[in-house]
Amino acid sequence: MSDAYGKDHKAQAEEWFKTFRDDLCAALEACENDVKSRPGDVVVGPGRFEQTEWQRDDPEGGGGVMSVLRGRVFEKAGVNVSTVKGEFSDEFRDKIPGADVDPRFWASGVSVVIHPCSPLVPAAHMNTRMIVTSQGWFGGGGDLTPVVAIDEDTADFHAAYKGACDKHDGAYYPKFKKWCDEYFYLPHRDEARGVGGIFYDNHNTGDWENDFAFTQDVGRAFLGAYPMLARRHMDETWTDEQRQAQLVKRGRYVEFNLLYDRGTTFGLKTGGNTEAILMSLPPEVKWP
Amino acid sequence: MSDAYGKDHKAQAEEWFKTFRDDLCAALEACENDVKSRPGDVVVGPGRFEQTEWQRDDPEGGGGVMSVLRGRVFEKAGVNVSTVKGEFSDEFRDKIPGADVDPRFWASGVSVVIHPCSPLVPAAHMNTRMIVTSQGWFGGGGDLTPVVAIDEDTADFHAAYKGACDKHDGAYYPKFKKWCDEYFYLPHRDEARGVGGIFYDNHNTGDWENDFAFTQDVGRAFLGAYPMLARRHMDETWTDEQRQAQLVKRGRYVEFNLLYDRGTTFGLKTGGNTEAILMSLPPEVKWP
Repeated sequence: MSDAYGKDHKAQAEEWFKTFRDDLCAALEACENDVKSRPGDVVVGPGRFEQTEWQRDDPEGGGGVMSVLRGRVFEKAGVNVSTVKGEFSDEFRDKIPGADVDPRFWASGVSVVIHPCSPLVPAAHMNTRMIVTSQGWFGGGGDLTPVVAIDEDTADFHAAYKGACDKHDGAYYPKFKKWCDEYFYLPHRDEARGVGGIFYDNHNTGDWENDFAFTQDVGRAFLGAYPMLARRHMDETWTDEQRQAQLVKRGRYVEFNLLYDRGTTFGLKTGGNTEAILMSLPPEVKWP
Repeated sequence: MSDAYGKDHKAQAEEWFKTFRDDLCAALEACENDVKSRPGDVVVGPGRFEQTEWQRDDPEGGGGVMSVLRGRVFEKAGVNVSTVKGEFSDEFRDKIPGADVDPRFWASGVSVVIHPCSPLVPAAHMNTRMIVTSQGWFGGGGDLTPVVAIDEDTADFHAAYKGACDKHDGAYYPKFKKWCDEYFYLPHRDEARGVGGIFYDNHNTGDWENDFAFTQDVGRAFLGAYPMLARRHMDETWTDEQRQAQLVKRGRYVEFNLLYDRGTTFGLKTGGNTEAILMSLPPEVKWP
């Protein structure tokens, strides 16, 4: 194995996913501190992340830490970090790059899903990961799911990702934006899940340092953009009609994650931690 | 094509699915009439089924009728009948019996999903169908999903199905009960969806008349057992804690239907009617 995607690089990536987790959790908790309290708030006072560690059954298989906040801005926000290793079952050996040569894998990453209380604050998802088989690569991205799209929010969110992309390669943003639009799409509804963002996978330019720097920039773009959007709307008053629309919109989120999301279905089929994987599901949903 | 599964038999089956739909809807509406009103009822007065017709895009492709009741016993009860025909895409030709020889299919059936208001009234599902490719068969069954299992209810529900099965073949009930237990199981939770019932598929003994009679008996078993169980519990008072447990239990129902249920995933991937297929999803759900 070459130095790229070797021991040092694994440790650096794993460390950074945790650092990003800490930074993002702090930024979301700061929103919890700063929101004005509302009459009828179910959660009184700022919400805080609670961490739960989990281990894979295999003592050598690694594990992760779930951080979940149930608060007054974010009804349920989950930030998971995990570093796992093992062997792909036969079912997956022809589906994962490099797994046909050697079924062993190492994977580390951070995964974020945020379901706000207010229907005026958009829901969001982001993830970055490093995967090593007989090959190695980064993947990730982030996307925004408002109940009703607001052009300014969409533009600001995309601008953050375009900035992160353009620092590295002018071709990235259009390519990864399109990939996101294609991926977060519900064919049975003929609907996009949200207003997009970026999505990339199997990303290996041959320059590990630069690919890792890109993945860090993708994370920082989310850190810069999302809490800002939450703050923009978190003190606005909403109607029960808007709340009901949010609960229905969340149903589409559930449909996407359980029917199509590769991370979810792959995770559940490869013995991943069910609670950590399904942390992505919204706290309350309606199919009226 | 032989007489079995021919034109007359298709018409008889289709007619019976509608008759069963009418009988079941009447039995559920009668529960709506008879329940005692409760202070704080969201729905006041007995709920009634509302029918919506749908057609496949292909003018020759058939369609169906959704019947949905939103009431004071049944928060959401859906009874769908449909008769559709078409051609399987390449993806399904090696998965459906007889479709490798000729991709054309005809399918008719009735499908029922009931999500009661009260956490003390069990949720239920039933379905019977006749499928014709270059082969022909019946399939169906029914199963019960209480929030907390009550032995007497489970016993009565199973006894009804055992009676329907034993009339035809003493081997049916143990075989179809086991099939149900294996089918309605969530591996990622290591949990059964409910307390079972029966499930059968590709059922063709060579005697169409008898196979059709069996399918009718399976329907009548549900008609006899389920409204009786609803009546047993519909006037009992429940706590908010029980309601919250119901909303969480419903999340497992969603997970099963979107991750594993062949009818759901097959229907959505073969251009079935999305609203009719996803009618099975509960009206309100929590993943706290």
